[in-house]
Amino acid sequence: MHIPELIRLKRDGHKLTAEQLRALIDGYTADKIPDYQMSAFLMAVFFQSMDPEELGTWTEAMLHSGEVLDLSAIKGAKVDKHSTGGVGDKVSLILAPLAAAAGLKVPMISGRGLGHTGGTLDKLESIPGFNVNQTVETFRKHVDEIGLGLIGQTGEIAPADKRIYALRDVTATVECIPLIASSIMSKKLAEGIDALVLDVKVGSGAFMKEVDQARELAETMISIGKAMGTPVRALISDMDQPLGLAIGNTLEVIESIETLRGEGPEDLTELTVELVVDMLDAAGKVDDRAHAKKMLYALLKDGSALEVFREIIIAQGGDGSVCDDPSVMKAADTKITFDAPQGGIIEHINAEQVGLAALELGAGRRTKEDDVDHAVGLILKKKRGARVEKGEPILEIYHNGTGLEKCIERLHAAFQIGEGPAQDKPLIYERLS
Amino acid sequence: MHIPELIRLKRDGHKLTAEQLRALIDGYTADKIPDYQMSAFLMAVFFQSMDPEELGTWTEAMLHSGEVLDLSAIKGAKVDKHSTGGVGDKVSLILAPLAAAAGLKVPMISGRGLGHTGGTLDKLESIPGFNVNQTVETFRKHVDEIGLGLIGQTGEIAPADKRIYALRDVTATVECIPLIASSIMSKKLAEGIDALVLDVKVGSGAFMKEVDQARELAETMISIGKAMGTPVRALISDMDQPLGLAIGNTLEVIESIETLRGEGPEDLTELTVELVVDMLDAAGKVDDRAHAKKMLYALLKDGSALEVFREIIIAQGGDGSVCDDPSVMKAADTKITFDAPQGGIIEHINAEQVGLAALELGAGRRTKEDDVDHAVGLILKKKRGARVEKGEPILEIYHNGTGLEKCIERLHAAFQIGEGPAQDKPLIYERLS
Repeated sequence: MHIPELIRLKRDGHKLTAEQLRALIDGYTADKIPDYQMSAFLMAVFFQSMDPEELGTWTEAMLHSGEVLDLSAIKGAKVDKHSTGGVGDKVSLILAPLAAAAGLKVPMISGRGLGHTGGTLDKLESIPGFNVNQTVETFRKHVDEIGLGLIGQTGEIAPADKRIYALRDVTATVECIPLIASSIMSKKLAEGIDALVLDVKVGSGAFMKEVDQARELAETMISIGKAMGTPVRALISDMDQPLGLAIGNTLEVIESIETLRGEGPEDLTELTVELVVDMLDAAGKVDDRAHAKKMLYALLKDGSALEVFREIIIAQGGDGSVCDDPSVMKAADTKITFDAPQGGIIEHINAEQVGLAALELGAGRRTKEDDVDHAVGLILKKKRGARVEKGEPILEIYHNGTGLEKCIERLHAAFQIGEGPAQDKPLIYERLS
Repeated sequence: MHIPELIRLKRDGHKLTAEQLRALIDGYTADKIPDYQMSAFLMAVFFQSMDPEELGTWTEAMLHSGEVLDLSAIKGAKVDKHSTGGVGDKVSLILAPLAAAAGLKVPMISGRGLGHTGGTLDKLESIPGFNVNQTVETFRKHVDEIGLGLIGQTGEIAPADKRIYALRDVTATVECIPLIASSIMSKKLAEGIDALVLDVKVGSGAFMKEVDQARELAETMISIGKAMGTPVRALISDMDQPLGLAIGNTLEVIESIETLRGEGPEDLTELTVELVVDMLDAAGKVDDRAHAKKMLYALLKDGSALEVFREIIIAQGGDGSVCDDPSVMKAADTKITFDAPQGGIIEHINAEQVGLAALELGAGRRTKEDDVDHAVGLILKKKRGARVEKGEPILEIYHNGTGLEKCIERLHAAFQIGEGPAQDKPLIYERLS
């Protein structure tokens, strides 16, 4: 296979055959195709895209570049969720135990935060002792016996995706829907799942700023799932303001525990429950959505979901007592309030700026190598649409002395207070499958 | 300078600043920018192009990545010609001595053949003893004293272009007019010339198949010349059939000597003379084109141009007696004819197929590493528009036993004989400046 000819074909808008696409991924994984040819190919894809059939093959080749978990020995429907990332998005911490409590098996492989968005692994590591590095054998055992496992991506899962993602990051080929979709799908389908639910975020704090883009990404991932025989559902949900009230690792775990107790913020609870209904539905376990929702709210209220969370925390080496007393987690010593600079209606909260405000405190990472301060973060006291008086606290800042000034600058940029009305955005825009 | 951001800007169709473009070339030359970022950038340029101002900076940065010849101590106008390449294109061998005989200084740095196209260096090396590797000092002396020098590209001339060209070759970014134009111009302007004449070939044997493309390339090179303060003229000339009658290194040198004696094929002689008139004109030495042409034809007829060729051959270590007796050059032992498979008018001769036919015999290179057999080649007995009888010889094949069968196959594909009329194509389509 003459690689420059394959690059030329894509560059000129032709469709590549399955054999040609596999040759690219296999050759790259085997170090037979150098980075400079792959980066030229990826830039050609940026301009010429790939059709659903090509993307199916491309994703499958990446998936099979490494280990694919075999969970076939585990009884029950194996279903996972993936979110495209946002600010205050702690859904995974609530969703996985809730879905497990509802009878699903959730083999969840998550990532770390970068830039203004948080990551599930960082949040979990706020819990004293919690170990996200588990052997595949232990992970499989947890999924089987507890109903979920919460780990990070290993080097063995979709290594071609890992290398291609790193290459895209330094060659300006990240913002490309077919490449984003295939990257996500190759990792998720390597989990050996029967179905997948996607939470595609849209708005100021999301990667996708417009609903059209979000829909295109969702549809692309659904079509890859179709090509590979795995049912995929997607919600397009609002990330124009932070989800829930807490931003920052420890603070988000505390809010997750409250939500697992049935006492969390309404938007966070509602979105999580909707996603779990979709997971159950994808597994063929829903006759009536309203009934399913009611059942899930009950599993929060009666403590069943929280008990599952406690079990997995303990199984993965963590201190299960956080479920009763979150104060065992290290929280920032100092708390100040951010007060409304003027009275009026909160018309808009720019989620990206809020995420960056938390990043300034040390809650996130600017580059992959940065350390995270789990103890710092923000708690919103008011959300979009609320009426505030001048000087009224609208947010609490938990800090350790770092980046406070820049954090406050970001917050001033984030809150738009005026005569109203507030922008009216739904929590869930669309449901696709 | 954050390189992914520069790639992103070009990818999204923005114009880069001079500082940004220089950072790319300088960083790449200094090994601070890896191949994979440069190849992604080049693919972005393929799709988004560069405007004349960007191209001027880009070319200048490549030019200054290495040595720029300083010929300022040499009196007289330093002018060179560049051809985009074709089949049977031995113009340089005639043009350089003729222009020198007419009083110009021609510091000519040439390349080797690849694929179906020949290269000046390979042709010169058919002359026993001729050495295309000369020190810059000797080259400068030859240009000063004899009026021309004929050498190959050294590693010191435009090394950034050399590396970028090699990278484009393996990443499907060759067919891109801005990159082609800047590559040619960076090498040519590193010769320290006062003016440049371009022979942009168009047709079946050329890189550009359509006049529109050829014009775009010519105009792009002229605009780069303008941006850099060097007058550039261009001819768009026919390469839909081979130029002259000979194809193959030794055979082309023999035809060049005949042409230098005023006894060459009309198309070859005419094109060469027209190009030299443009060189003289670019140097401000032409009042009347007709008069200039007459003078140049006289320099061929009276042997002045051939004497200059003899001088440079001897100066560069070659056997000057080839100018009197071309048989001192090694020619292929065996000659057979290729006969017209049917009677009629030669409507079209596909120059690329003829070039590939010669390549089959060993006259050229499939890859850069191949050796060339200088002795083999083809002599056309008939050209486009000629009437032939069935079985009449239309071409002679000089071979050494290699590739004869495939050569003949190519020739069958090359000649289109029918009821006529032949396609009527001018030798020179357009003159641009």
